[in-house]
Parts: sequence; C-alpha cells; structure tokens
Amino acid sequence: MTSISTLLVSLALLAPQSDSKYDPMTRILLKKGMAELGAYAMLEDLTTKVGHRMCGSEGDAKAVAWGKATMERLGFQNVRTMPCMVPHWVRGSVESCVAKRSGADPVRLNGTALGGSIGVEGAALEAGVVEVRSLDECAKLGERAKGKIVFFNGAMPPENLRTFASYGVAVQQRGGGAIAAAKVGAVGVLVRSVSTMNDDEPHTGAMRYDPAVPKIPAMALGVQSAEKLSAMLRDDPDTKVAFKLSCETLPDAPSANVIGEIVGNEKPNEVIVVGGHLDSWDKGTGAHDDGAGVTQALEALRLIKEIGWQPKRTIRVVLFANEEMGGRGARAYADYAKSAKEKHIAAIESDSGGFAPRAFGCSYDSNKLKRLNKWRAPLAAFGIDRLEPGSGGGADVGPLGPLGAVLFGLEPESQRYFDYHHSNNDTLDKVNPRELELGALSLAALCWLISEEGV
Amino acid sequence: MTSISTLLVSLALLAPQSDSKYDPMTRILLKKGMAELGAYAMLEDLTTKVGHRMCGSEGDAKAVAWGKATMERLGFQNVRTMPCMVPHWVRGSVESCVAKRSGADPVRLNGTALGGSIGVEGAALEAGVVEVRSLDECAKLGERAKGKIVFFNGAMPPENLRTFASYGVAVQQRGGGAIAAAKVGAVGVLVRSVSTMNDDEPHTGAMRYDPAVPKIPAMALGVQSAEKLSAMLRDDPDTKVAFKLSCETLPDAPSANVIGEIVGNEKPNEVIVVGGHLDSWDKGTGAHDDGAGVTQALEALRLIKEIGWQPKRTIRVVLFANEEMGGRGARAYADYAKSAKEKHIAAIESDSGGFAPRAFGCSYDSNKLKRLNKWRAPLAAFGIDRLEPGSGGGADVGPLGPLGAVLFGLEPESQRYFDYHHSNNDTLDKVNPRELELGALSLAALCWLISEEGV
Repeated sequence: MTSISTLLVSLALLAPQSDSKYDPMTRILLKKGMAELGAYAMLEDLTTKVGHRMCGSEGDAKAVAWGKATMERLGFQNVRTMPCMVPHWVRGSVESCVAKRSGADPVRLNGTALGGSIGVEGAALEAGVVEVRSLDECAKLGERAKGKIVFFNGAMPPENLRTFASYGVAVQQRGGGAIAAAKVGAVGVLVRSVSTMNDDEPHTGAMRYDPAVPKIPAMALGVQSAEKLSAMLRDDPDTKVAFKLSCETLPDAPSANVIGEIVGNEKPNEVIVVGGHLDSWDKGTGAHDDGAGVTQALEALRLIKEIGWQPKRTIRVVLFANEEMGGRGARAYADYAKSAKEKHIAAIESDSGGFAPRAFGCSYDSNKLKRLNKWRAPLAAFGIDRLEPGSGGGADVGPLGPLGAVLFGLEPESQRYFDYHHSNNDTLDKVNPRELELGALSLAALCWLISEEGV
Repeated sequence: MTSISTLLVSLALLAPQSDSKYDPMTRILLKKGMAELGAYAMLEDLTTKVGHRMCGSEGDAKAVAWGKATMERLGFQNVRTMPCMVPHWVRGSVESCVAKRSGADPVRLNGTALGGSIGVEGAALEAGVVEVRSLDECAKLGERAKGKIVFFNGAMPPENLRTFASYGVAVQQRGGGAIAAAKVGAVGVLVRSVSTMNDDEPHTGAMRYDPAVPKIPAMALGVQSAEKLSAMLRDDPDTKVAFKLSCETLPDAPSANVIGEIVGNEKPNEVIVVGGHLDSWDKGTGAHDDGAGVTQALEALRLIKEIGWQPKRTIRVVLFANEEMGGRGARAYADYAKSAKEKHIAAIESDSGGFAPRAFGCSYDSNKLKRLNKWRAPLAAFGIDRLEPGSGGGADVGPLGPLGAVLFGLEPESQRYFDYHHSNNDTLDKVNPRELELGALSLAALCWLISEEGV
C-alpha cells in the first residue's frame, strides 16, 4: 500500500471523533504506554531472567521473587507474598515414543508427558493402539480397549471463529482421556496436541485421574506425529506403540501469590483486582501463557502510578500461583478475600495471550451490561470493540464472583494463541510489543474507570 | 489457561446467538474455508514459486502468468490479462552507507535505495549531514542544508491505535523528502525506515521527484542505523556520511492486470470487483503486501464457486499491476471500466496485510452506511466488528469510486503490518493461515451479500 491509499485511510482515521470526558485519559495512556512499551520490557525480563516457572519448580520460586522485586522497584504499596502449597510434578529427563510395525523400522513420534501423568516404570510401555476422536468414542470401545493404548486424535474443530471454543472441545481428551481410557481397561493414552499449528511440537497441559479407576500414563503427541500414527494405523491396525516417561509427582511445594497495590484515597476498602498467573508450563518460557497477563497487570498499575492518578478505590495487582495445575493460588486469594474486611467490587483477568485486544468478557448478563455502555468509547481507544456478557472472567478471578466481584476477562485476538500454547514455541519472539501494550492499556483504563465510577 | 476457565469461556461462546437468514452462508464459509485454508496454500505457492514481483521485473511477468494459470485451474470464467506499461526501476547490486567521524573508524549503516531514486554516479556521495524530523523542519533549514545530506529521522508516532494513521505521518518524509531537501540545496537524503519494528532491516517504498528541482539520491536506513547516526551527530555534528547506490530507472516495461470472474445469472452487467495488487517490492516476497490481498480475493471466488453458489451479479477478481510505483494497473482498469458497458456497483480491496480482520472501511458516509446494518451480524462471524464510513477503499479500487462504485477496504488488525512492510521480513512465515483465511471469508461474504442484495 502506498501513500495514495494511506492518505485516504489516514484522513478517515483522523476525522474528528465525538469528544468525550474520557479523552484525556485515553490520550495520556496511549501516549505514555505506546512510547514506553513497558509490558514488553518486563516480559523480556521475566522470560529471560526467570524463564519457565512451573509450579513447585526452582523457576516458580524465582518468579515469586521477581514479582515482588518488580513491584517494589515500581513503588507499589503493600507489596507482599501470600504463601500457598502447590502441586509439584516433574517431567524428568526421559520422554520417548516409537511406533512399530512388523518387518519395518520403528518410527519415532514426537511426544511429551501431560502434566500430572504418572511415569512408566521400568521398561517402555508397549501395546497395540486403538484410535478415537473423542471421549464418547472411547467410552464405546468396550472390550476393544483392553490392554491397549488409546490414541485420542480429535483435532480442534477449525470452523470456530474463536479458537477458545475449539479448545474447549478438544481439551476434553487431554483432561479426561486417561480416566475414560482406564475405565475401558486401557494401559496408557496418547493425545493429539491441542493446537492450531500444523507442526510437530507437542503441547503439554493438565490431565486428571479418578480414584475409582487405575492411573495410566498420558502423553501428548505433536500434531504431525499424531497424523503419522493415524496413517500407520490405517495402513496396519496392528501397529504398536512403545513409550517411556520419567515424570513423577513429588510432595506439594511452597509457592505464593504476589500482591501489590495503590490504596484508594476515598474508598480504600473497596478493591479492584487485576492479574494473571505467575506459573507456567515447563515448555518455552510461558511468554503468552501467562507472562503476558502478569506483565500487563504490572504495567497497568505502573502507568496509573507514574501518570500520578490517585484512584478513589484500591487497585490491586495479584500474580496468582499455580493456575496451570489446580488453581491453589486462586483459592488462597479467595479464602483471604472472604476473611478480610475488604469489599472486592471487581476482578479483571488477562490469561488469553498478549495479542491485540478485541473485547472484555464480563460476568454481567446483557441487561446489566448496559450499565457499562458509557465505557465502550474509551475502551475502543485501545481496540476493545466489544463487551461480552456472561463470561466467567478466568480461572483465577472466578472464585471472587461468588464474593460479589464483577468479573472481567481480557479477550485478545485468539487465532495464534493455540499455535504456541503450552509448547516450546511459547516464547518472547511470538509477542508483539504493541499488541501486548494495548492489552495493558485496556486493563489500566478499565481499572481506572471502575475505581472512579464504580461498577 | 486451563480447562476450568476455558469451559466458562466456551459456554459463553456456544450460547445461542440470535438466528438470522445469513447463518447458513456464514456457517458454510467458515466450515469449508477454515478446514481448507486455501488462501495460505495459494500464498505459499506465490511466494515460493514466484517470489518477489517488483513491477517490470522478471518476477512481475511470472506473477502475471501465475495469476492467470491459477484462475484457469480454479475454473473462473473469462480469465484474461489486461496489458499496461509499468515503470521499471532496478535496484542494482551496490548499496552501501558509512558514517565517518574524524579520527575514528567508519561505521557501517544499514540502508537501501528508495524506489524511484536515482543512483550515485562514480564515487560515493560524501557530505556532512543535517538531521530533521519532518518536511517542515527541512523547509526551515535554508542555507544550512546546502551541499549536505538531509537525514529525515522522524519516527512513526507510537500513540495511534491504528498504525496506518502513523504511517500516513511518517511516510511524507519518504515520499517527499528528496524534493524538500533539493529545494534547500541538499545533495542527497537518508530517511529513517517507516517501521514499527525496533530492528535494523531497511524498509523501501516509493519516493517522488519534482521537475522543478534537481533529482538527488534517496536511501532508507534501518531504524537502528538511524538511531545510531542520530547519536553520532549529537556527539559530533561534523559526522559525514558516504553512500553508494547503483539503482536506475529503465524504460517502461509491459505488465498486466489479471482478471477472472463468475458471471452473474440475473444481472451479469452489474459488476462487483474484489482484488489486491499483484506487484510487490523487491524485498522479502511481498507476503503481506500484497500477496495476502491477491490470494484472499482468489480464495473468495474459489469458495463461492466450489460451494456452488450462483451469484445474481458478476463477481470479478482483479489482480492489479503496479500499485507500489504509480498505480498504472488501477488506471488501466478504471479506463476499461469507463469504456465498457458494465456498471461497477462495488469494489472491494484487500491491501493492509493478511492479519485477522476487524473492519471494512466503506466510501459511504455514516448516514448511507446505515443501509448496510443488516450485514453487520453476518460479517461479525468472520471477525468484522466495525463498518467504518468515509474510507477510500484503497489505491487500486479508488478510481472506480467516481464511476459509481461503492468502495470497501478490508481493515485487518494493523499492529504488525509495518513491522514487515516493504522489507526483507515480509515473508510467508509472518502470515498466520487462519488470520489470512478469515480475511478471505470476509471478502467472500461481502461479495455474496452485494451480489444478492445490491448495495
């Protein structure tokens, strides 16, 4: 595109918009935020100095220290940690998977343990394979699954505009596959990575066990490895798979939420929480999940503080522990909130990646959401084109809903999130500094609007 | 984000939406398009088999042949080329730039010729440097510019949400810098790359000359090289720069628009044009600019054809020649449209990158735009949250406006476009297949709606 068309576009963009009392707020946030790109600088710091921060790991402890030191450096008030015990699962050094056909060389498949899986004791687990595309199909296997490895190969449905809707479908196999397969007598599960990317990077993530059925080991396969195994099974249904995993669950380990705030100067006991989760998986460096949310929340409060705004209500950043494997940090914070004499009026979460913002989900129904129509214009200044009713906000702020907080969740553009999510590709270079910052500005503006006008 | 929060989000997303008569259309486009990702497959083909396609180059001729062959393969009707002559500027093999301070080693700067620049004859052009941040500042230099190289170092203003608005500001230096500098007696210009990326990749692009003043050579510097030179000048205002360019303008060369269509079965003489430009710069492979628009337009018609829809009006893909250096293809097409006995009712352009769609700009004013309110819901199915009044559509379809066509321009998320634009980084790996396809589906839906209901 050259200057001819650009000029026309620019004229359209520069045309006078309806002026509003919020314009000075949006202008100063854009001016300072987009020039300084502070969220990206903090994300670079977190992902390079700390790296991954799997709950219970050394990185987790370093991340807690990093969060506290960062808040202190930024001059937040009442900086503190809120200890909680978290699960401590370790991947170990052995992960291998091969497919075997009689009379042919074994074929290496790219896989990684799902979080929480038991390991494989002694020799590799070797068995025949039965392929299904859903938990339902697995339940119908009956005797055919006995002694076999169940291979869940259901892909994310491509046709949903919002990838989270497709994730919600495919992730059932990852979360519940080991239980469903154990119920029909299987000895292990392989699960196609829940991914939108056509590559061979395996994506990990949490899986569950049910005390009523045996625990069987669970491994994620890269999408291309899953396709390869599926083709081999079509060719020869007697194809076997052998896999090894050295992962194990150790005793719970200490971790902590990290908290800092600006105390409100009119209603200090009314609290607005803004945050993301500090833990990550042990793949990549958790840049989008959820380094983005962590640094956006920090950046939101940094901007409010440095601009010199004095909020009426208390705006509090909470970096939650252990979102990925159980939500112990969220529970610890909700327990605290219940017991403290503070009124949590709103809680805002960013945990959908550091992409360009498009919407806020809100726990209000569409009727109540009309109360916030006055905020549509100022939020649009950062790319927020929609307020969506009936959303839970997110896993970490969700428990504050029953305590009376209105919940908000930042919804950025979702097309690329599951390309990287829970894989070695979730790294800093996948984050665009401007897109990340616009999310931080959206959080800052929403915190400020709630602080000044209530909700 | 784990399955807990995802489930909440998914429930919200899966909640029944208000049903509409357009739902079958949006559903089938999403189902087929997002499963096949045809735009990306064509873009891979174009960027690998043709590569860059600078107007007048060998690649340009290959691209015309590729476009025609692709349309024929897809079974479009009336596939044809529409010849036109285009400028033929060549970069040549020599591009170098060094900054020199007395008593210190010369410092290499990363630069590339601006499109249309004259070369430097014989030895390097060496002169003192005077730095400005805008055309206005240059005009005020007066005698101080005489015999010097003017260094335009105005950055894209970071604070605009939409990067095209900032491009519109900074690109004035690129387009008009050589004229402004020659007017005050300068012998050459260096221009900071019009880029949102903090790297050292120079971004080329068109520049102009004015017959009333001497032609002086013009070179773009990478953003980091521009910052380096600026720092050197602060340190030592006598810093000199020496640069060489072997670029030159050859006689005009033949090229062509490439055209194919589905003829309307009720009003074949009412035409809807959808397209992008086939030429690119000679940096990278023009994946976003404008391989995206080209393949999205092709994909839109492919989908309509393969789904088996019979449009009432003629839907025509036009791949325009020579957008980047003068718009000769657009002029040739508008001349044709004027003389042919066809009524061009609408023209839709995609030339803002293959990112997730967010809006359509439209030449209607806000009052007339209300007529299209019924289309807001179906377009939202592909991520189009806004219809924006008063936009010119784009450089290629713009000339069809005065002939009565309503103009539309696809507006995808703009944060990353100028990271890659006109540089070696504009390559296939920067394009997300789903984001690209959603743009193609938006074009397909808009073409179909206009074909069925008029505009």
